[in-house]
Amino acid sequence: MADSKPFPALDGDPETAETLLRAVFGIVMDEAVRKGTSASEKVCEWKEPEELKQLLDLELRDQGESQEQILERCRAVIRYSVKTGHPRFFNQLFSGLDAHALAGRVITESLNTSQYTYEIAPVFVLMEEEVLKTLRALVGWRSGDGCHYSIKKGAAFLGLGTDSVRVVKADERGKMVPKDLERQIKMAEAEGAVPFLVSATSGTTVLGAFDPLEAIADVCQRHGLWLHVDAAWGGSVLLSQTHRHLLDGIQRADSVAWNPHKLLAAGLQCSALLLRDTSNLLKHCHGSQASYLFQQDKFYDVALDTGDKVVQCGRRVDCLKLWLMWKAQGGQGLERRVNRAFALAQYLVEEVKKREGFELVMEPEFVNVCFWFVPPSLRGKQESPDYSQRLYKVAPVLKERMVKEGSMMIGYQPHGTRGNFFRMVVANPALTRTDMDFLLNELERLGQDL
Amino acid sequence: MADSKPFPALDGDPETAETLLRAVFGIVMDEAVRKGTSASEKVCEWKEPEELKQLLDLELRDQGESQEQILERCRAVIRYSVKTGHPRFFNQLFSGLDAHALAGRVITESLNTSQYTYEIAPVFVLMEEEVLKTLRALVGWRSGDGCHYSIKKGAAFLGLGTDSVRVVKADERGKMVPKDLERQIKMAEAEGAVPFLVSATSGTTVLGAFDPLEAIADVCQRHGLWLHVDAAWGGSVLLSQTHRHLLDGIQRADSVAWNPHKLLAAGLQCSALLLRDTSNLLKHCHGSQASYLFQQDKFYDVALDTGDKVVQCGRRVDCLKLWLMWKAQGGQGLERRVNRAFALAQYLVEEVKKREGFELVMEPEFVNVCFWFVPPSLRGKQESPDYSQRLYKVAPVLKERMVKEGSMMIGYQPHGTRGNFFRMVVANPALTRTDMDFLLNELERLGQDL
Repeated sequence: MADSKPFPALDGDPETAETLLRAVFGIVMDEAVRKGTSASEKVCEWKEPEELKQLLDLELRDQGESQEQILERCRAVIRYSVKTGHPRFFNQLFSGLDAHALAGRVITESLNTSQYTYEIAPVFVLMEEEVLKTLRALVGWRSGDGCHYSIKKGAAFLGLGTDSVRVVKADERGKMVPKDLERQIKMAEAEGAVPFLVSATSGTTVLGAFDPLEAIADVCQRHGLWLHVDAAWGGSVLLSQTHRHLLDGIQRADSVAWNPHKLLAAGLQCSALLLRDTSNLLKHCHGSQASYLFQQDKFYDVALDTGDKVVQCGRRVDCLKLWLMWKAQGGQGLERRVNRAFALAQYLVEEVKKREGFELVMEPEFVNVCFWFVPPSLRGKQESPDYSQRLYKVAPVLKERMVKEGSMMIGYQPHGTRGNFFRMVVANPALTRTDMDFLLNELERLGQDL
Repeated sequence: MADSKPFPALDGDPETAETLLRAVFGIVMDEAVRKGTSASEKVCEWKEPEELKQLLDLELRDQGESQEQILERCRAVIRYSVKTGHPRFFNQLFSGLDAHALAGRVITESLNTSQYTYEIAPVFVLMEEEVLKTLRALVGWRSGDGCHYSIKKGAAFLGLGTDSVRVVKADERGKMVPKDLERQIKMAEAEGAVPFLVSATSGTTVLGAFDPLEAIADVCQRHGLWLHVDAAWGGSVLLSQTHRHLLDGIQRADSVAWNPHKLLAAGLQCSALLLRDTSNLLKHCHGSQASYLFQQDKFYDVALDTGDKVVQCGRRVDCLKLWLMWKAQGGQGLERRVNRAFALAQYLVEEVKKREGFELVMEPEFVNVCFWFVPPSLRGKQESPDYSQRLYKVAPVLKERMVKEGSMMIGYQPHGTRGNFFRMVVANPALTRTDMDFLLNELERLGQDL
């Protein structure tokens, strides 16, 4: 350290950084926001993995690159990425680009902080508390606790073993059968097991089914079991006075998981785990009192340092995007979105029924519309012995064609005893009947030779 | 559904959305990027929680708000947030605002996809593979596997119980003592326990200590134990030819955790779990083959659908910010950053030694510089019986003063038998000697009456 002068700024002067960011914002605006949500542009630009690797030139080298090269890389990343905000992206339980939510996400990224202490996240600690309070009120609880959510594949991961999980029967619409739940609990107890948790679902992934929560809560109450409701997909229906009856009984749950990044399009990830408990259970479970972070001699109320309640330590800020969108739309605006999604799904169902070549898997109760496309060569051949086998091969072929053309994306899957069928998800708040009509027309076009 | 016309676009026309986003980008540019990284602005704007709640008007209501109101809310969120990119934010293991990394984060948010399938994240599946390959090569492995990382407080969470964790002795510099490790393994085996994993650390949180990995790997090899290295903080030192010897032996680990969001300032979160294993262990552990997502009859190589390897399902894209920054800086640029952080930390150490009123906790081997500020009234009183007790009360007082003035933020904590001391973290790539001098001058100014 012979040199006593300050180091020069290594990473470019502030002006260069600003120029770069302004240029990137412009590219994002043009390519991801405007073109990415325009029905006249492709939803995806399919490339085989090896070709895409070459186009992207992914290798990380010793030498840095010029600003011009970097901007070209930004354009390429957007060009070859799937446009999940596109009105023809029906592929997942999330879709659409809400400008307020994106604004919240960009601000979040520019502030780059961790949710763990009031010290470094004063706005977001208070904001998350308010957002969670609002979600809990929609569930029907006046108090309680919550933290954002990161638990999946739980039984295996927690060391309980997958054998400890018993699958309860569902009816033909995918809804849990409470009588079978009670039967399985009694059987488990008779075998010396100790049941402790029932996990019900409000809005299943494929069929969009809602379990009958009141009847399930009755069973849980009789047996003293914790009732968890996975409302990741269906939770947002609580915003709708018209449709929230689908979740009647959810207020009797002990815990609820709810992902506003799905139906509300808040942006990945925005996941809440809500607890009815008011005894600070999360802190008792997960607290480890790291003294370098959660000093007890701070000059403010350290109960605001909520980071010790969660399993991870550092945690992203996920509340601003939902909060800002909610402020802009109001609860009423979000309710209209939910109602509108239901209405559009119903419109699609009616169209499917009207058209030759489409067969509904079942009447939906949510915004998942499941159906088969029956190509011309299979129409009227229902009695043929290989009908099902041939029908189930249609979806993968059409999926390949639509992705390679970039005209739309919709998911398919087998489910139970049923072979591959399409699952249309009406989640993008910008959808109109035109997009529903397009979906059916496009399947007809893509499958006319099958 | 009497109305057969398309719904009108509910959430404003595209032009309104664009106007909003352009305005928000401008606010982010001015308030978060320019002012947020300017030494002439405050690092934080302290408000008591109750006052801040009122200023932010957090309540979520039924009615939506005008664009003007929303933009004012965006400004308020930034105004009252801590500026972690500020050159006087020394509070955490992350600091600084890298323009390329932020550009990558904004693009990521605008594309809003999930990392789980090639189908919806073609660019990012390939990019993450390349980034992880590069990180593994720096560890010293030619092949292996990796996924981003979300496991903490592991023993309790995994159901092993905290009693199953044995803490190995560290020397006075915080480095694990391999002899004690071997002694504890033998003791555990003698008690009938089955040790299976040793977790060593490269760069501890407070002292920045590096465990002696070669000697620890020898012990693990003798006893057939899995060696995990938590290099969340210190992993980035592998980029420096000058300093990577601190991690000698890491290539013998079975798994390594590394957070480029810390020293490399990639942005929260960017965490990698790297595995030497090449047998697809993650898939065997976590795979659950959800048929609605990981269809086996897809038209491309489904080995690219990596989502089933991780504990969670939906997963954010965390690779682009690091990839874009690496492309712009090159490995050389990142190496200079690491070397520069070491050099600045060393400069600070020399200054601390020169100045009256500062006492080094120990010679650092990394960029954590731990020291006490001894206020005027305590200087020369080391022999006084209440010296330590009074000294340890200094840091919380100075912390309150600096936060309320908004002049800087630096963390303090007790550690082992030592009472509260400051932990200076030299992580922000924009730091200069001026900022080191400022730190010491400011502590003197804030503590002159103590």
